[in-house]
Amino acid sequence: MESMSEEIPPSKLQIKEYHGKDFGLFFEPSSILCEKFSSFQKITVIETESVGKVLLIDGLVMFSELDEFFYHEMIVHPVMVSHSDPKKILVIGGGDGGTVRELLKYPVEKIYLVEIDPEVIEVSKKFFPQISSSLNSEKVEIINSDGAEFLSKSSEKFDIIIVDSSDPVGPSISLFNESFVNNVISHLSNGGVYISQSGSPIFQKEHLKEFFKLVKIKFRIASLYLVPVTTYPGTIWSFTAGSFETDINEIRREPPEGLKFYNTEIHRSALSLPNFVREIIK
Amino acid sequence: MESMSEEIPPSKLQIKEYHGKDFGLFFEPSSILCEKFSSFQKITVIETESVGKVLLIDGLVMFSELDEFFYHEMIVHPVMVSHSDPKKILVIGGGDGGTVRELLKYPVEKIYLVEIDPEVIEVSKKFFPQISSSLNSEKVEIINSDGAEFLSKSSEKFDIIIVDSSDPVGPSISLFNESFVNNVISHLSNGGVYISQSGSPIFQKEHLKEFFKLVKIKFRIASLYLVPVTTYPGTIWSFTAGSFETDINEIRREPPEGLKFYNTEIHRSALSLPNFVREIIK
Repeated sequence: MESMSEEIPPSKLQIKEYHGKDFGLFFEPSSILCEKFSSFQKITVIETESVGKVLLIDGLVMFSELDEFFYHEMIVHPVMVSHSDPKKILVIGGGDGGTVRELLKYPVEKIYLVEIDPEVIEVSKKFFPQISSSLNSEKVEIINSDGAEFLSKSSEKFDIIIVDSSDPVGPSISLFNESFVNNVISHLSNGGVYISQSGSPIFQKEHLKEFFKLVKIKFRIASLYLVPVTTYPGTIWSFTAGSFETDINEIRREPPEGLKFYNTEIHRSALSLPNFVREIIK
Repeated sequence: MESMSEEIPPSKLQIKEYHGKDFGLFFEPSSILCEKFSSFQKITVIETESVGKVLLIDGLVMFSELDEFFYHEMIVHPVMVSHSDPKKILVIGGGDGGTVRELLKYPVEKIYLVEIDPEVIEVSKKFFPQISSSLNSEKVEIINSDGAEFLSKSSEKFDIIIVDSSDPVGPSISLFNESFVNNVISHLSNGGVYISQSGSPIFQKEHLKEFFKLVKIKFRIASLYLVPVTTYPGTIWSFTAGSFETDINEIRREPPEGLKFYNTEIHRSALSLPNFVREIIK
């Protein structure tokens, strides 16, 4: 019996994220650091050698330590260097703190973080201090609420509204429809810009098409840009910006120093779309 | 016994490509269409729903039907629109025919395809006719030889030399060293350009650093550009170009119509590098 058990390889943990029916990413984590069910979703943190620690929500990768800066820098810097004077910022989702970390590299006055799930913040504070410590800033006000509900009740206006949500399934579904976008518009100050992650142009083509069409109808200027994110489905991730006065194609200031992904060349290049993506949004 | 067997889910085929020790892509193919050992390597073709048919060599994805055009368009069009008059082209590797298919969209005179493994060509002809049919063109001469050996014996000069190889392990290792690059240089015509795939800036950083350094020393102009490829490790794939007169940053002609990825905006944006990639090659 003993010799037999020696022949069986040690069982490996395996976590898979399907990007299609029969294709996706796998992780073989050395350990699962956290697995809990909040009131909203399942939150998992795993440890890997190749991509560092990874945060998953309902089984979908939110970020890995390897590439979180690709996403967090690129959801923030294009809009922050384009807006004439971004002082008051609303972030919906983003309870991990990565987006706030990047925003704090500018002299903003106030960041409101509306995260529906306080457990995401807790988990991030425990396992990703390099990302979540930004949330301790005095400039940051955390509101545990549904983003759509918060907006519909708020009488504030914001210079920038960033939707840094999980995919448009589960608790995030209310952040991609017409009534939400209307609500965003009524809460943008003059020159204000709305920016939302808008999914994979490869594996979530239909969602992107519909969502971009909506933003294009509702705003004077609608822009799509693309960012490669190693641990996201389909290689390239899309962001959609909507605005009336500010054009994110115009760069008005130098970005902060010390960034690992973003520079102004990358800003321009992210706004260039391959032909098959032009087709999706035409 | 029967009821027990019903509880066991049907065993799924699973093929994994590790991009790091504990991270990578998986496929759950509906079938393995081909699995054979040539004199050089293991060649596998699988069928999937999400990304179509996939060609693997020694377990590494060469391409999937979903995204082969990302890679094949981007290894060809940047150099073809930049060279003043590309007539005689040498392709090393690329036995699948994808690179030749893109080259034939220009009025070239002759394409030499040097593929070490005739079985790659056979498999591609059988399973990927939309890619490999290009190889039937009268303009194409197929030479089954090691690329480095071919170059060292040839007295021809080429306007463009493209290295469309598998990763620098196994039979492709001889295509990334100094003596090979010297050989390339002595076979470039005036205005000639050398272009080689140069791996993932995320998971093959050291290889890229060394290889780019070599090209930078040997050529007057060395350029790196990046392309997202869904089924390749680490989201973004790199290509290195070396030349003396022709600068691939200069676009001299319109690309062919009907491309799915490449356009001249993408040409420029591919040459923009994120800060962490600038660091690798500085």
